[in-house]
Amino acid sequence: MITEHIINQDNDKRVAALHADYDALGEHLDRRGIDIAVIKAKVADYGVAVPSWGVGTGGTRFARFPGKGEPRDVFDKLSDCGVIQQLTRATPSVSLHIPWDNAPAADLNAKAEEVGLSFDAMNSNTFQDQADQPHSYQFGSLSHTNAATRTQAVEHNIACIELGAQIGSKALTIWVGDGSNFPGQTNFTKQFERYLDAARQVYDALPDDWTLLTEHKMYEPAFYSTVVQDWGTNLLIAQQMGDKAKCLVDLGHHAPNVNIEMIVARLTQFGKLGGFHFNDSKYGDDDLDTGSINPYQLFLVFNELVEAEADPDFNPMHMLDQSHNVTDPIESLMVSAMEVQRAYAQALLVDRPALEGFQEGNDALMATDTLKAAYRTDVEPILAMARLDQGAAIAPIPAFRASGYRKAVADERPEVVGAGGGIV
Amino acid sequence: MITEHIINQDNDKRVAALHADYDALGEHLDRRGIDIAVIKAKVADYGVAVPSWGVGTGGTRFARFPGKGEPRDVFDKLSDCGVIQQLTRATPSVSLHIPWDNAPAADLNAKAEEVGLSFDAMNSNTFQDQADQPHSYQFGSLSHTNAATRTQAVEHNIACIELGAQIGSKALTIWVGDGSNFPGQTNFTKQFERYLDAARQVYDALPDDWTLLTEHKMYEPAFYSTVVQDWGTNLLIAQQMGDKAKCLVDLGHHAPNVNIEMIVARLTQFGKLGGFHFNDSKYGDDDLDTGSINPYQLFLVFNELVEAEADPDFNPMHMLDQSHNVTDPIESLMVSAMEVQRAYAQALLVDRPALEGFQEGNDALMATDTLKAAYRTDVEPILAMARLDQGAAIAPIPAFRASGYRKAVADERPEVVGAGGGIV
Amino acid sequence: MITEHIINQDNDKRVAALHADYDALGEHLDRRGIDIAVIKAKVADYGVAVPSWGVGTGGTRFARFPGKGEPRDVFDKLSDCGVIQQLTRATPSVSLHIPWDNAPAADLNAKAEEVGLSFDAMNSNTFQDQADQPHSYQFGSLSHTNAATRTQAVEHNIACIELGAQIGSKALTIWVGDGSNFPGQTNFTKQFERYLDAARQVYDALPDDWTLLTEHKMYEPAFYSTVVQDWGTNLLIAQQMGDKAKCLVDLGHHAPNVNIEMIVARLTQFGKLGGFHFNDSKYGDDDLDTGSINPYQLFLVFNELVEAEADPDFNPMHMLDQSHNVTDPIESLMVSAMEVQRAYAQALLVDRPALEGFQEGNDALMATDTLKAAYRTDVEPILAMARLDQGAAIAPIPAFRASGYRKAVADERPEVVGAGGGIV
Amino acid sequence: MITEHIINQDNDKRVAALHADYDALGEHLDRRGIDIAVIKAKVADYGVAVPSWGVGTGGTRFARFPGKGEPRDVFDKLSDCGVIQQLTRATPSVSLHIPWDNAPAADLNAKAEEVGLSFDAMNSNTFQDQADQPHSYQFGSLSHTNAATRTQAVEHNIACIELGAQIGSKALTIWVGDGSNFPGQTNFTKQFERYLDAARQVYDALPDDWTLLTEHKMYEPAFYSTVVQDWGTNLLIAQQMGDKAKCLVDLGHHAPNVNIEMIVARLTQFGKLGGFHFNDSKYGDDDLDTGSINPYQLFLVFNELVEAEADPDFNPMHMLDQSHNVTDPIESLMVSAMEVQRAYAQALLVDRPALEGFQEGNDALMATDTLKAAYRTDVEPILAMARLDQGAAIAPIPAFRASGYRKAVADERPEVVGAGGGIV
Repeated sequence: MITEHIINQDNDKRVAALHADYDALGEHLDRRGIDIAVIKAKVADYGVAVPSWGVGTGGTRFARFPGKGEPRDVFDKLSDCGVIQQLTRATPSVSLHIPWDNAPAADLNAKAEEVGLSFDAMNSNTFQDQADQPHSYQFGSLSHTNAATRTQAVEHNIACIELGAQIGSKALTIWVGDGSNFPGQTNFTKQFERYLDAARQVYDALPDDWTLLTEHKMYEPAFYSTVVQDWGTNLLIAQQMGDKAKCLVDLGHHAPNVNIEMIVARLTQFGKLGGFHFNDSKYGDDDLDTGSINPYQLFLVFNELVEAEADPDFNPMHMLDQSHNVTDPIESLMVSAMEVQRAYAQALLVDRPALEGFQEGNDALMATDTLKAAYRTDVEPILAMARLDQGAAIAPIPAFRASGYRKAVADERPEVVGAGGGIV
Repeated sequence: MITEHIINQDNDKRVAALHADYDALGEHLDRRGIDIAVIKAKVADYGVAVPSWGVGTGGTRFARFPGKGEPRDVFDKLSDCGVIQQLTRATPSVSLHIPWDNAPAADLNAKAEEVGLSFDAMNSNTFQDQADQPHSYQFGSLSHTNAATRTQAVEHNIACIELGAQIGSKALTIWVGDGSNFPGQTNFTKQFERYLDAARQVYDALPDDWTLLTEHKMYEPAFYSTVVQDWGTNLLIAQQMGDKAKCLVDLGHHAPNVNIEMIVARLTQFGKLGGFHFNDSKYGDDDLDTGSINPYQLFLVFNELVEAEADPDFNPMHMLDQSHNVTDPIESLMVSAMEVQRAYAQALLVDRPALEGFQEGNDALMATDTLKAAYRTDVEPILAMARLDQGAAIAPIPAFRASGYRKAVADERPEVVGAGGGIV
Repeated sequence: MITEHIINQDNDKRVAALHADYDALGEHLDRRGIDIAVIKAKVADYGVAVPSWGVGTGGTRFARFPGKGEPRDVFDKLSDCGVIQQLTRATPSVSLHIPWDNAPAADLNAKAEEVGLSFDAMNSNTFQDQADQPHSYQFGSLSHTNAATRTQAVEHNIACIELGAQIGSKALTIWVGDGSNFPGQTNFTKQFERYLDAARQVYDALPDDWTLLTEHKMYEPAFYSTVVQDWGTNLLIAQQMGDKAKCLVDLGHHAPNVNIEMIVARLTQFGKLGGFHFNDSKYGDDDLDTGSINPYQLFLVFNELVEAEADPDFNPMHMLDQSHNVTDPIESLMVSAMEVQRAYAQALLVDRPALEGFQEGNDALMATDTLKAAYRTDVEPILAMARLDQGAAIAPIPAFRASGYRKAVADERPEVVGAGGGIV
Repeated sequence: MITEHIINQDNDKRVAALHADYDALGEHLDRRGIDIAVIKAKVADYGVAVPSWGVGTGGTRFARFPGKGEPRDVFDKLSDCGVIQQLTRATPSVSLHIPWDNAPAADLNAKAEEVGLSFDAMNSNTFQDQADQPHSYQFGSLSHTNAATRTQAVEHNIACIELGAQIGSKALTIWVGDGSNFPGQTNFTKQFERYLDAARQVYDALPDDWTLLTEHKMYEPAFYSTVVQDWGTNLLIAQQMGDKAKCLVDLGHHAPNVNIEMIVARLTQFGKLGGFHFNDSKYGDDDLDTGSINPYQLFLVFNELVEAEADPDFNPMHMLDQSHNVTDPIESLMVSAMEVQRAYAQALLVDRPALEGFQEGNDALMATDTLKAAYRTDVEPILAMARLDQGAAIAPIPAFRASGYRKAVADERPEVVGAGGGIV
């Protein structure tokens, strides 16, 4: 962890300017009838989960360029996640990926307590083969034609639930790579029937207070068809399973041009929005940093979420899911967590009674301007003050760089080479 | 109508070659264990509906270039559709669009009988304003914020059902342009609630033996959001309405890269595939001639349909829906009807037991080759022989050109100018 | 025109808040080492041309819903454009479309002087047929297979230059709809050869101080191929023609996911960026209001333009090009002009030396944060103050609505019906 | 290699049917005025290069599932490629990838002679880091901000040329992953200047009879911008370099919906089409088997190539480039080589004088039908007979399976595990 001294030292340089900016924004918002303190409080309460796999350097099928001080195991990952939370106070929980993060529950709980984190949704992995695994997932997992392979995948998911139950998790996220690369390779209907049957077995093993989150994705690793290809199929799964089953929306898993905020609205309307994997993309499932490519779209998603907040039963899970190929993963995750907060803060500024009036009157220009007025407000002072109030860094990136954390872990963690890449 | 003499004259030139091709194909298929006569009989039984609006020249928002001899009213349209059926025997029915095709039921029935056609699904129009219409559809129809506008749209749909009931139609197709052009212009959830409420009123007016077909479309005429934007929303509509409600799939209404044949499979699996608007596209809702851009995709759609044929309750409606901007509409519709037949015939040739074996065994290469073996078979002789058997033209385009029909109608139908276009 | 009194009245209500916001922003920027007055001066100097056709209500191929008080002719259009400039001081010039805006040069000049506008690029129209036009453009114009049609199109373009020369224009923009709807319909190479040959004749008729701007577009109205489909072909045209030929980039004319700011950079690098048609889109050439869908992308385009500003020879033309289907065109054009200014102002705030340092050092995170820091600054006070300084409206939309201009012109201009739409 | 006996044995079962099919097709084509023997001779002369890396199992960033008997080194790869050529006689050459295939030239030549193959274009690799490489390519290679990294990349390319010169290659293909993942990460213009400068050094090292092929790609591994992102930039490179520089078109490297055959036509027209990487895709750079997703598009590409064949200087290189994740690579490459031949054979059947007439007369329907008439002809008997004539297999897949080759090499080549995948 980083010493408070380092954080304070960096904050000291910035606190006067922050107060000036915060006060000016407060006055401006006051003229718009908004109490800045209320917004700040909501932002301070907001948290997004960090993916344990996100603190390692990502890669592509072509190459992976290892970073310095990459985590060697789940405990190193939790240390890194702890730093993110320490500097931002925006990421109170971590989402584990099994078997990558397998460890005794007691050890996980102890480490989590040490670094001040809790555990978010569990993630199973049936898209890769593990050593000594009897059945290969090359041709699918939950939807494989071979019953024994499906059983193996089901059992792995149940094991994830069991571990999760011991560490305080309340959800299982299932993403499978099952699909096909050729027309005819698979029978779409039978494949989906097999998927539903296997998912049912996982669902039945779910504790009562758990949620099953299924994640759709248009393509990759399968390149002709994917068994859970879009929100339509995802919705069917949630409907077939039952009340504990909901849909997870990853922002990068859609067809080009798709209106994602509308999918969010539809799933919300029918009680099936379970959670998010936040990231950004320009082409496919690029797993870029959240808000880095199209920040207005992120705002529009949060506009839907704030719209639905009034309902006490509405409580989707929020998680980052990114691949950090050219940046320090800790830095990217801190910035991304703050981008999610930013979108949330901006969405809170929307004048909803005015918006509703413009919508009812079909005043399209003023309706969209109502969103834009909120979006173009620079809420950075609110975010920074919320951090300062909680003892975090006004400017997490400079504070992190000043701390020497990366160098310190680089000294104790050897470089991980050869993992991934090399495929054309 | 075209005289039999003209058709026979053209056929006489081609019949010897056709027999040679047909016999050779028969022998070839026999070696593959397929009886060509069985395939021909199925093709002969197959029909696709022609859209009444398709026989007029289409256009874009930029311009419309009127053709010669365009139909002046629904009776001219039925005459043109009669020619298409006469020459191809592939298009036994016509789908009307109201109010464009409004006319007394008795007159419609008389004309249909005269030209040897029946009536397929009715289509309502709430995306354009008609003269003397009290409420504008500029900001929506079934989902408009104004209750009176929604009522007007509901009543129009019910009027379509009432006319349809008198002319033997058994289905109503609803496509609306409702949506928005700006983020915030509309509240997604409230808009869809209004849509569902209005659609319910139409559904309740449906005779017991009718089907309600709702059609989704990603965009256009609305360019930020569309209320029935994809099959997920379309499915929700059909689920909310009831057993008589099903989804219509237009091949050009999807996001880029979407696997349409998979949507067909999903809707089929859950009993909600209601019908098709066949066409082709490269970019958006281009409304190009069916099979003209990606004929293999059309085959893959029919592969799903043939797969599902075994179920006696599976009976989706088939209709062409195209815009003919640079060709003679009659010619394009004839070719397109034959392309649909071609895809059907090719799909019938798939060795399904072999395919199933390869699928079960995850032999992706042989599975896809099984489809390709069917697809690359030149089934033209089967189609042509099915036409010849029924007194239609071996080669409908040359026969049509030889008939002088277009010139004859051009002489009696004045050119339609100024309709459409002129918008940048 | 709108009386100064109306404007002042509305401004009076807002001026105190504006000063507070402006001063606070000035102090904030001062802390970042930026002089707000310098930015304001650049914004005040900036102008974007308004398209004459933009002040009429647009439509789609499905329908057009006429607005109140639509301009009847080019003189009404110039009046409307005058109001836009009066209230925003962001749109000093108008771009005409011929033959829609044909009128005696003296009358055009007199009207322009009356409303305080000048003339930007001329636009020719060879994508529609005009009454009494000998040759149809249904199958193309500059690239038509028929030499007489090509000549007709060339002569029309030359007529546009001749009129433009009399009204102070310095550029001709050519956009053609030439292409094909079917594979094989046209020979790509011969078609482009004919295009180049015809364009050469137009180019040769260009005065020495004029620029020929050619505009590429992926599709629509042609739906299989378009002769100038992308910037690659557009670049070839500009290279083949000569120094006076440059490429025009319309933000909505690209394939899905394309990185437009990179095209801007490439054309700039090779001296071939001629100008812009600003608008926004989510799906195709949606012609939505500039910055309404992806404002960050607009900023990234301006980031390239500011980067290139240092070169005195770099002077691309800026024009709006939108279709206003659900808003008052005057309002949309005012907002869009301000969005362009906003993106320009934000791009001026980028700390370029810092950016360059991060780029050289491959510090991707800080490089992108440098852009974001500029982008998230709310520059509205700068824009508003620049308007106020020039006697325009602090808040143009409320001022316009208060003025009663739309009602006044609605009273004197009869509704335009039946133009456009009605095509499925 | 596979014994002739095995091939003959399988052929014997099929030869009678083949003769029947071939004769029937010959008679049919004769009625269309086409001499089947001429087509067969052209097909027999045609060859497509196999990529050395294609005979290993591919993977995605998520996982790689190793196949049986994967090649351990370039000599194993050449053995596998020899089998492909032996069974299909469609793949006379191999394209090497350096450093993966580094070996003494003499050994390469000896092995190539042994298996009856020659060497096609050389491929350099500057998208991965090799052990002991001084400078990392994480942030680029030929366009890296660091001069020493660029020099390292240039020298590697020159080494590829030097090895290629010793083994009879006549071309170097450069594909780089250089780009950026964040707006602002790189300066587009400076990056491209650096690329051009480095490429110039490679170009200058090219022997006189060599061609430099540069390959564009929209995205991946860079996900915001790629330095050679499309054919426009690729064309600029070829123009800047000189006559020996040409553009390589990979069918999977384009934006969604792009008309690839038109790019082929443009590059051909301006003398800059250098070659192809054939494959197929539905979403991105899926590297699926050629013709497996959209065979009509492949035909349309070949339609352009046959159109241009008349020019003796037109001689682009043809190479497969695929990733085989769920099939036996040898089988996929055989099928893909035959799909390329199929498209070529179909394109040869196009009645070009008729097509030209329809194009000149704007008879879009008959023009496209002229292409379709060629495309729908089942040319399988021509391909099979061309193989039989050359001692290859009528049906290469069954012959390969009958041969036991895969099992034999699986016994002698240990399984390759752990290479690739494991990245989320």
